[in-house]
Amino acid sequence: MTTKFTLSSSLAADSIPVAKLDLCEVRLMNDANFPWLVLVPQLPGAIEIVDLDPDTRHLLMDEIAKASQALRSVTGAEKLNVAALGNQVSQLHVHVIARFRDDDAWPGPVWGAVPRRHYAQETGADLVDRLANTLE
Amino acid sequence: MTTKFTLSSSLAADSIPVAKLDLCEVRLMNDANFPWLVLVPQLPGAIEIVDLDPDTRHLLMDEIAKASQALRSVTGAEKLNVAALGNQVSQLHVHVIARFRDDDAWPGPVWGAVPRRHYAQETGADLVDRLANTLE
Repeated sequence: MTTKFTLSSSLAADSIPVAKLDLCEVRLMNDANFPWLVLVPQLPGAIEIVDLDPDTRHLLMDEIAKASQALRSVTGAEKLNVAALGNQVSQLHVHVIARFRDDDAWPGPVWGAVPRRHYAQETGADLVDRLANTLE
Repeated sequence: MTTKFTLSSSLAADSIPVAKLDLCEVRLMNDANFPWLVLVPQLPGAIEIVDLDPDTRHLLMDEIAKASQALRSVTGAEKLNVAALGNQVSQLHVHVIARFRDDDAWPGPVWGAVPRRHYAQETGADLVDRLANTLE
């Protein structure tokens, strides 16, 4: 296990920084198809939720709730999807995704459903600002 | 909001009872492609994790960890997938899925990946027994 947390290069490339909470770095997936946050616990070597200690798991749950509230408040999400998969990127990360009954993947999961579409720079920056303000 | 918890008929039809924990009913998805637990908090009207009170969210996290440990110990899972989606069945339920690098959906998510395949009765009953014993 390394002693210093470093964000995976794949997560870094796919997402935009939003905020740092006590445990997690919160990032916005750069995919304009779905308002989609990723929470990355800043813990070196973390892979599975079950392997965190109980207090850290509770803090992760608190931050999932905080991110869910912010995302729902900013986007008006009709449903939230929360998931820790990690099959492709092993570094522990939790997806919190705003879903709508008219989105391009509904009612299926978002992963691999439609080609990723980057935010226009201004749109992405505006969404990040609103999420960051709501998370603070 | 109704006052009595009733398991959704869809979840009931797709899965086999394993155990009842303090918060959640734990069930095994009747899909021999993937060892796959579903945790259903026994709370009438629950849909989103974020709308649970903080203590209940922590208890849900504890039971996710408990189910994850049991599933990994019984199956030797190489990776765990944990997800609350609820796009098709709104009743709050959390998937805890044992993944293997040679399973039929790897490295994608399991939902919709391959046609569901029911357990042979003895195989399903044996897996349920081992999971129930490990959860207790």
